[in-house]
Amino acid sequence: MPRKIIIIGANAAGVDAAVAARKTDRTAQITLITKENKGAYSRCGIPYVLGGQIPSFDDLLTHPSSYYRMMKFDLRLETTATKINTEAKKIEIQDKSRKKEVLDYDRLILATGAYPFVPPIKGKEKKGIFVVRTIEDGHRIDEALKTAKSAVVVGAGVIGLEVASAFVERGVRTTVVEFLPYVLPAMLDEDMADKVQEKLEEKGLRIIVAHSADEILGADKVTGVSVAEETIQADLVVVATGVRADTGLAQKAGITIGERRGIRVNSRMETSVKGVYAVGDCTESVNTITQQPALTQLGTVAVRHGKVAGINAAGGYAIFPGVQGSAVTKLFDFEVGATGLNEFFAGRAGMQTAAGTIPSKTKADYYPGALPIRVKIVVEKESERIIGGQIIGGEAVTQRVNALSFAIQKHMTVRELAKADTAYAPPVNETWEPMILAAEMAIRKL
Amino acid sequence: MPRKIIIIGANAAGVDAAVAARKTDRTAQITLITKENKGAYSRCGIPYVLGGQIPSFDDLLTHPSSYYRMMKFDLRLETTATKINTEAKKIEIQDKSRKKEVLDYDRLILATGAYPFVPPIKGKEKKGIFVVRTIEDGHRIDEALKTAKSAVVVGAGVIGLEVASAFVERGVRTTVVEFLPYVLPAMLDEDMADKVQEKLEEKGLRIIVAHSADEILGADKVTGVSVAEETIQADLVVVATGVRADTGLAQKAGITIGERRGIRVNSRMETSVKGVYAVGDCTESVNTITQQPALTQLGTVAVRHGKVAGINAAGGYAIFPGVQGSAVTKLFDFEVGATGLNEFFAGRAGMQTAAGTIPSKTKADYYPGALPIRVKIVVEKESERIIGGQIIGGEAVTQRVNALSFAIQKHMTVRELAKADTAYAPPVNETWEPMILAAEMAIRKL
Repeated sequence: MPRKIIIIGANAAGVDAAVAARKTDRTAQITLITKENKGAYSRCGIPYVLGGQIPSFDDLLTHPSSYYRMMKFDLRLETTATKINTEAKKIEIQDKSRKKEVLDYDRLILATGAYPFVPPIKGKEKKGIFVVRTIEDGHRIDEALKTAKSAVVVGAGVIGLEVASAFVERGVRTTVVEFLPYVLPAMLDEDMADKVQEKLEEKGLRIIVAHSADEILGADKVTGVSVAEETIQADLVVVATGVRADTGLAQKAGITIGERRGIRVNSRMETSVKGVYAVGDCTESVNTITQQPALTQLGTVAVRHGKVAGINAAGGYAIFPGVQGSAVTKLFDFEVGATGLNEFFAGRAGMQTAAGTIPSKTKADYYPGALPIRVKIVVEKESERIIGGQIIGGEAVTQRVNALSFAIQKHMTVRELAKADTAYAPPVNETWEPMILAAEMAIRKL
Repeated sequence: MPRKIIIIGANAAGVDAAVAARKTDRTAQITLITKENKGAYSRCGIPYVLGGQIPSFDDLLTHPSSYYRMMKFDLRLETTATKINTEAKKIEIQDKSRKKEVLDYDRLILATGAYPFVPPIKGKEKKGIFVVRTIEDGHRIDEALKTAKSAVVVGAGVIGLEVASAFVERGVRTTVVEFLPYVLPAMLDEDMADKVQEKLEEKGLRIIVAHSADEILGADKVTGVSVAEETIQADLVVVATGVRADTGLAQKAGITIGERRGIRVNSRMETSVKGVYAVGDCTESVNTITQQPALTQLGTVAVRHGKVAGINAAGGYAIFPGVQGSAVTKLFDFEVGATGLNEFFAGRAGMQTAAGTIPSKTKADYYPGALPIRVKIVVEKESERIIGGQIIGGEAVTQRVNALSFAIQKHMTVRELAKADTAYAPPVNETWEPMILAAEMAIRKL
């Protein structure tokens, strides 16, 4: 009898789990259940379609539908999993015609994702208010943008800023409202966030920090947002105040939910119920630096979860080593990235830190087209280990984040980083790599 | 009495040594001796001036002459150090008017550099044959390029290929002749080198490997080069077959020369004579992977040497941790980088290796402007440690080299790399980082 693997959710985590399962067991019967009317796509690409950098939402589809057939995946579109019976190893599903069906499984993978959290702002039921999660959300915003002259984005996290930047690139007068005292609070410390804010303001984005959106105004359709007694005109409002893990189905099935409100798993991505795995935005990980549970809802984490769970569900052996939170975005013509802990989160975890920051260039100073870059390194004081990095720059940010991620993973000390062997040529770097210089600055603060 | 520090050589290594010494001891009397008629400049920039990317050779000067005064450096231009008396702690110098002088020192730093090695090719004394080491060499080549229609570059190392690419960009029909069986033999294995050769040939560069230049032809001035019984027309010839450490002065003073024909130093960059340091292209390092002496003549190594020696000479304490050979270049519109050992050199050091190679893209596949990139990871079989990386790509090569350099430095295994936490956003990377995929490929070969 072939092994029956059912995966609930068919985006990054679910499909990568399916692929890993297929590579591990060629004969397994693999079923993917998704509420959406299409297979996996890149959510991360949505803001860049809105901004016009990517021509069409269709470009975001990860695979053609022929791929699912080739991999022998039974992809059930517009289908909702309504119940899990972990004793009997069965799930109940319902298709778009409301027809119910019960499926048996040997192994179950929950990739139920997350849903946008909309805070209780007065007037949030009005027309013209959007969230950014699915391609359908993207289409709706795109449609609204065609007539919009002004917009308010609530939330200055990565998605909020990506969407707001896209709006500005589309010629829409846009204001971002952030409740916390600075932008990108999950990624950056205030000193670095302020630099990002300056750059965004130079590009024409208005940013209001340390204030909440008090009320969304308008009769039926949104006309503005009230913030700190000011009325900001808005033909459309996007609420990008984070997502919540979608754990309803798991909870009903008695699967343990962790302290960060994601599904708790062990290092093989197995939940509290044997044979049931969880992956992606609905699932907690362990932060390798704090050793505490983390809900790191990133595409890279989702695919890494998926791969490990897929291998294990198909009878192989793989472990997930935890997360460091390496993330990057591109806003207008500059990139912002981070890995590990920033000083704020390190402090919250009880760690004492020193940090070093350096402004530099991405090429030799004399080489035409050298762009500014700013690197901050965060160090834990006792061990002198690098525990975090934050980078803002015109180019070459992502791979510096990866370099620092490797350094953190392997417990590199700041003194070791200050002596590291780096590569240089005038068109691609300065002789003294900025990460090295930032490490030097941090050493002085120890 | 202030400490007297004399530095022979005032390029990257020498000046960085001076700067580090000044930061360590504000009152030291620091003298820099150089044969050249200017202070430090970036040799690495010369090919990019020839190619037209950098407007002028003057742009390559690292500091204005006011900088030397500000730092209170006594910079002696057009001056040759002719003798060192390590017993009496004196050096003899001669200025351009042939006037001799004897200087006392407390600490001496040798930054005598390297000189181009020209193999005994028949006809090598003809006019129109150049090497690429100094700005003067650059000026001479630039002048010759004004009337040249064709050129031959002997040697397909980094400098040879950079210069040859520059010639093509200047519209000169150019052929590179390499004695070894593939290009960039110090950086790349043959499989990767062949990809570089293909790309260069697409750009219009002719490359002949596994052949030597038999004779340089022409009555008085060069007219061509004879290679494998073919006559290749050439109005100018550049010989870029490597450099030799300039150790004559050190040898005469009885300072120990190492097995790689560079000055031997300890981890504080001190030579066999107490109080005498050596840095830069004339100096050996230890390769951190093989633990063997290495003569790694790179700008990044020179400045790192200089810093350590400068601190120590000024009474501080610093050690140099060794070299991994991280290097990168940009040729036309693509970059080539490497770190650690390639399979060839690992084999020569007696190591058994496995390697994984992956072709990928620099952005999400669907993101406009995604460029090809190819990553090769070299793994030592018993420890499963990453010991080398080679990368060819349209962008974002340098920082991947740095990331792999950090991984090598911290003894990351290939299995750890395959699970590493990396950053992703559609405009700046693929979801699965190519280094991770290359690690996966390597694991299959273990």
